[in-house]
Amino acid sequence: MPTKPIEGGVTAPSGFRASGLHCGIKASGKPDLSLIVSDTPASAAGVFTLNLAKAAPLYLCQDHLEATHGIAKAIVTNSGCANACTGPQGMTDAKEMAQLTAKALGCRDDQVLVASTGVIGVNLKMDKIRAGVPQAVAALAADGGAAAARAIMTTDPFPKEYAVEVDTKLFGTFRVGGMAKGSGMIEPRLATMLGYLTTDAQVEPQMLQRVLTEASRYTFNAITVDGEPSTNDCVFALANGASGVSINENFYPALFEAFRAVAHELALGIVRGGEGATKLISITVTGAATDSDAWMAARAIANSPLVKTAVHGGDPNWGRLVAAAGRSGAKFVLEGARVQIGSLVLFENGRPFDELAPKAAEYLTGKDLKIEVNLGAGGSHAATVWTCDLSAEYVKINAEYRT
Amino acid sequence: MPTKPIEGGVTAPSGFRASGLHCGIKASGKPDLSLIVSDTPASAAGVFTLNLAKAAPLYLCQDHLEATHGIAKAIVTNSGCANACTGPQGMTDAKEMAQLTAKALGCRDDQVLVASTGVIGVNLKMDKIRAGVPQAVAALAADGGAAAARAIMTTDPFPKEYAVEVDTKLFGTFRVGGMAKGSGMIEPRLATMLGYLTTDAQVEPQMLQRVLTEASRYTFNAITVDGEPSTNDCVFALANGASGVSINENFYPALFEAFRAVAHELALGIVRGGEGATKLISITVTGAATDSDAWMAARAIANSPLVKTAVHGGDPNWGRLVAAAGRSGAKFVLEGARVQIGSLVLFENGRPFDELAPKAAEYLTGKDLKIEVNLGAGGSHAATVWTCDLSAEYVKINAEYRT
Repeated sequence: MPTKPIEGGVTAPSGFRASGLHCGIKASGKPDLSLIVSDTPASAAGVFTLNLAKAAPLYLCQDHLEATHGIAKAIVTNSGCANACTGPQGMTDAKEMAQLTAKALGCRDDQVLVASTGVIGVNLKMDKIRAGVPQAVAALAADGGAAAARAIMTTDPFPKEYAVEVDTKLFGTFRVGGMAKGSGMIEPRLATMLGYLTTDAQVEPQMLQRVLTEASRYTFNAITVDGEPSTNDCVFALANGASGVSINENFYPALFEAFRAVAHELALGIVRGGEGATKLISITVTGAATDSDAWMAARAIANSPLVKTAVHGGDPNWGRLVAAAGRSGAKFVLEGARVQIGSLVLFENGRPFDELAPKAAEYLTGKDLKIEVNLGAGGSHAATVWTCDLSAEYVKINAEYRT
Repeated sequence: MPTKPIEGGVTAPSGFRASGLHCGIKASGKPDLSLIVSDTPASAAGVFTLNLAKAAPLYLCQDHLEATHGIAKAIVTNSGCANACTGPQGMTDAKEMAQLTAKALGCRDDQVLVASTGVIGVNLKMDKIRAGVPQAVAALAADGGAAAARAIMTTDPFPKEYAVEVDTKLFGTFRVGGMAKGSGMIEPRLATMLGYLTTDAQVEPQMLQRVLTEASRYTFNAITVDGEPSTNDCVFALANGASGVSINENFYPALFEAFRAVAHELALGIVRGGEGATKLISITVTGAATDSDAWMAARAIANSPLVKTAVHGGDPNWGRLVAAAGRSGAKFVLEGARVQIGSLVLFENGRPFDELAPKAAEYLTGKDLKIEVNLGAGGSHAATVWTCDLSAEYVKINAEYRT
């Protein structure tokens, strides 16, 4: 079924409104409160960080999704404060944030999903939230997706939103939209940073959870900025059925493809906008003995500071790719390994082709790079992870994050 | 038994001579060929990197130690070229390097251990090695340890050597000396970068292997600069018995303590001289459920770019310590966790003490820092890993390594 990109983000599908504004959490005066609302209660699904130091709002959202069996009307998010490692007060504040939103919208508390992002270990300024939530509800608009996407940013250099439309031919069209934020503490593991997907297709909660999990695997879960799964990673999906298109098993592949397309674009946006990033690097590992070997090696290469600095400097130092693969824990056979930068094979059958280094250096001046490492382990498993280069700017951003 | 630090390095123990000179591998003109020789065939032991992309000289040394059942007379090392990922030519070159040294010294080829360090994937300039080895033999001196230590450096800002003397009271004294190099691609795993220990104690090869392995565990194996176990990591120990002190089981603890003391000092020197490093950070994890959990969490924190950049910027961002512990794979219970920077407890029983942040920031202006994270997992296992901060200089060094 044809899936085509369209303008907008979370409010591109019918029946969703959103807003974003500055309520006073960020000292900078930038937007820090974001709200997405479905006109009708929607099917809802979520995936959450595996970090054991989980933030309070994540526990609350898991409780809410369980209590409602996967129904939600709104997602309220503040940036500038992660509400993580904040003790019992953190949970009290997350609950109040849901209550305030529910009251202003006239829905049940447990139909509100809550997320926070920003500094860890600082309590939420609840007076700002109390004043901000009614303003955010009043500002809700059918074209408010862009404002909502802007209000969840922390160190992100640009907002991330994307949407597609799927034409089912016989049964009409539906849309999937999304927004996400990065851009440090990013290596989602079976979960992710903040990502929100909306669709006006009618999807049962169970199927929504399935498509969100499966689409995340090769998108949000396949990116890294700095190898740091965060305390606040989560992705939510809302499906309100406003398009009139109901998704059954026959339509599942089309829904998956639409979710994958939106999640892919948002995930790559997070990497492009990674802290200090100047290049997007796709790391593909092939010839792995097992699926988990392929992922393990791809992640090791994608998180290697030596690989990331070499790419930053435009240095085709392929030895660092081999070294990272060799120490990744995956089966690796040096004699059968192959390293390819762009279309240039720099190492194969145990032998270097260093005469190609100048051409590879030229290729690395680009912004969108492909690197492939065959582990030579005799298998046919493969995995692709997207990462960015490591620059002095990353150090600067993170050495001065709170100062 | 009293163990006291003494001047010098690998030639501090009796019966060892060494040299270091420029033979022409480094374009900079800096020393690049290092030789350590025992006057008599010595007991020899080695530990090697677990990286599956192992360099040719490591395979050769493993063969030599097996063939001789742990006897060696010399260690020859070049810097500026790792002789890794160099195909069959790499092994041919490593063998010739051993032969050239054996011939000049008048010993068996398999009594020579060979090591290389530097750029991966480039073949050794054998004409330089052929001319250099006889010169290195001619330059051997009983006070040549410092020259040898200087000739194994790559990006190291200073040479690393250390020595101790052990007084056994009744049976005389013996000495242990050592030298090592870093300083990028450093996270030794059951092996290490280049480290050489010498002793004039008489130690059987099996016991020498045991003391080297055990002493490495809490020293060379407990450091990291960038989480990158290299292709060329190895540590060798030579024991020539020249002191007349023979080590039996009763003396083993004294030998272990001496080896640990030398290895500890060299290992910390590697971290202090880590690429771009400005601070030495000791990360201690306590309250772990298992020994492997303690190591896993300590390594995760020590390799976290967010922790390393925060320390670099003097920012007591303890939330990043909690986040790294929480994602490490170790059992972690947020409510029982505790974070201590210097003597300041910033997080305990699920609650932040952020009012101490200014004091912690002041502590972080120091050069030698202690951080402790209790996992709150109810166990009593602990581990300490030494790391350094991550600076813009690290990025600069590694973005320009080959250019």
